[in-house]
Amino acid sequence: MHANIRRLMLAITLVQGFAWQPALAESGKAVPAPNGITLPADFADWRLIAPSYRTDKHHVRAILGNDLAIKAAREGRTTPWPDGAMLAKLAWKEQANERFPTALEPAAFVQVEVMLKDSKRYKDTAGWGYARWLGKDLKPYGQDAGFVQECHGCHTPVADRDFVFTSPVRLP
Amino acid sequence: MHANIRRLMLAITLVQGFAWQPALAESGKAVPAPNGITLPADFADWRLIAPSYRTDKHHVRAILGNDLAIKAAREGRTTPWPDGAMLAKLAWKEQANERFPTALEPAAFVQVEVMLKDSKRYKDTAGWGYARWLGKDLKPYGQDAGFVQECHGCHTPVADRDFVFTSPVRLP
Repeated sequence: MHANIRRLMLAITLVQGFAWQPALAESGKAVPAPNGITLPADFADWRLIAPSYRTDKHHVRAILGNDLAIKAAREGRTTPWPDGAMLAKLAWKEQANERFPTALEPAAFVQVEVMLKDSKRYKDTAGWGYARWLGKDLKPYGQDAGFVQECHGCHTPVADRDFVFTSPVRLP
Repeated sequence: MHANIRRLMLAITLVQGFAWQPALAESGKAVPAPNGITLPADFADWRLIAPSYRTDKHHVRAILGNDLAIKAAREGRTTPWPDGAMLAKLAWKEQANERFPTALEPAAFVQVEVMLKDSKRYKDTAGWGYARWLGKDLKPYGQDAGFVQECHGCHTPVADRDFVFTSPVRLP
């Protein structure tokens, strides 16, 4: 009986080990933002919307999109983006590649910021839910749900682009 | 009979329209490189290895990896990278976002460069096959297969990193 239980536990451990995916398991640990938005466990697997570089903050960045966002971007349906589209902007501090100093590459992870389109749920902010997680501990940004006014305020200059600054790349 | 043919052609057109995916269909058109390497039709769907910025060329860039490369990167198996791993470095000219000028974003597409690990096939260049396609027409780079010596020469300073400059990002 004990041997059977031990065998069963070993089997469970093996199955868990087999299913384990580093980026997924780790991002799944993020605490939800104060407005209830959760960081999808698979955001590191999303596809490319665009890379970018911030001259003021010295960040190298990548904007990724979930399947719905990528489909909408490729079909040119981004004014407005469809409900369910989700964008994640990943930022790292820059560092010059030590063997190729004119290439600035990711150093410390700074943050991941999310925009989630749900025209009913986020009616007060033009259909967009916002969230931000800071540093490698993915600390949720904001004291309470009011933090989204700050996000939305900064995005208001691009209201005519459905509040998204980035133009998705079109690959040949 | 004519009506039937017309209906059949309409049906074919609809099926083609339904299956059409801009990035995939278009990248599938690239002519193979002079050394026979083909640009995988799905490279725009690969996942993120790292974004980067080139201060000398004023390019924003993204390095993507096929499934095998992403798995190897996440498991830290990159010295050496496993056979079958493929990396694609996408480069665009920079342009300042007109509503947020400190954000440099992709403008015209410059090129996609590929490294493909096959330790038997590319024994002469330390197991790596190289290729580059230029511009939105994806014009293959190089007059003949000898162009790879130029690629490999530039990557030799990072021989101890299995000839890859970029460090894959580790997301929290």
